[in-house]
Amino acid sequence: MPAPMDFYFDYSSPYGYFAAMKIEDLAAKHGRSVNWKPILLGAVFKVTGSQPLPSLPLKGPYAIRDIARSARFYGIAYKQPSKFPIAGQAPSRAFYWANERDPALAKKLAQALYQAFFVEDRDISSPEITADVAATLGFKRDEVLAALNDPAIKDKLKNEVDAAIKLGVFGSPYIVIDGEPFWGIDRFDQIDRWLARGPF
Amino acid sequence: MPAPMDFYFDYSSPYGYFAAMKIEDLAAKHGRSVNWKPILLGAVFKVTGSQPLPSLPLKGPYAIRDIARSARFYGIAYKQPSKFPIAGQAPSRAFYWANERDPALAKKLAQALYQAFFVEDRDISSPEITADVAATLGFKRDEVLAALNDPAIKDKLKNEVDAAIKLGVFGSPYIVIDGEPFWGIDRFDQIDRWLARGPF
Repeated sequence: MPAPMDFYFDYSSPYGYFAAMKIEDLAAKHGRSVNWKPILLGAVFKVTGSQPLPSLPLKGPYAIRDIARSARFYGIAYKQPSKFPIAGQAPSRAFYWANERDPALAKKLAQALYQAFFVEDRDISSPEITADVAATLGFKRDEVLAALNDPAIKDKLKNEVDAAIKLGVFGSPYIVIDGEPFWGIDRFDQIDRWLARGPF
Repeated sequence: MPAPMDFYFDYSSPYGYFAAMKIEDLAAKHGRSVNWKPILLGAVFKVTGSQPLPSLPLKGPYAIRDIARSARFYGIAYKQPSKFPIAGQAPSRAFYWANERDPALAKKLAQALYQAFFVEDRDISSPEITADVAATLGFKRDEVLAALNDPAIKDKLKNEVDAAIKLGVFGSPYIVIDGEPFWGIDRFDQIDRWLARGPF
């Protein structure tokens, strides 16, 4: 049984959202499983000196256009959120909390949170809204709200972000397969070949 | 007859090199022609505040790895040059000069210059080496060297760079098809669909 691949993503990342909608199919095609790891790119950007895409001159306006076009290309629903980017603490903590209970359902929660933000324009940086989304999947609203303030869950997210930075993760989506890093949904073609035939 | 697509590239850009080896086949598949436009990303980066990939924290080491892996993925010869990045004036001017004489041969010159740099590790920022490469394609060495100092050719390159910045070009390769911009060789799949079926 090959090792799972690690999938790092940020809740403000449209390309991370696209990857979240596609990565399980890609992995399953090759008999792989996936460890989902939401991170906070804001903390990463403090190290890299980078900035959110939309705020960059020239690249920002292009990115807005490329994101919408890529969504159509991949056949994924997308609506540019009115508030963007957002703080990812609430949805990220909700994921790690859910993941300790039901890893398969936690992935569905991660996707539902992404869709709430990138399709329904709901501000998932709000604990209330994150809890609402989790409730639709059967999680108890009050338990989710409590978890978002649980020091152990806060530490879990912080440790995952620190570990990701230490590993060199600098963007979203960022996928690591047997030590090999792939940045961007536009590396899914290389990932596909890597999983099929091994290192090239 | 559809309008030609515009292909912007910088001589220090490995992804621009990959695109240069593939774009004519992609365009020909759809009955399109390509306008090649070497530019100087250094001038662009002054506007965008960006920097050459290899100098960025975390992203730099990844880029080195991704470039080599992408070359293998595309089946294109590649060797990381010992001096990198380089100033692109000499090869870019040589292209625009050759393009006024023989556009088809100018594209072969553009490819040969890229290969000299990214396969043979020859420093094409040197006018002498650029002229050597041009000579292998039948251009007269002395004429090339004279052209590299010709104020009209210098102005041509400067004007192309200014026009590219005005258009919003911020990277390499950057392809514009009927007004639609595509950044990166990893958008060739979207370009392929765009050329086949029109806007999506």
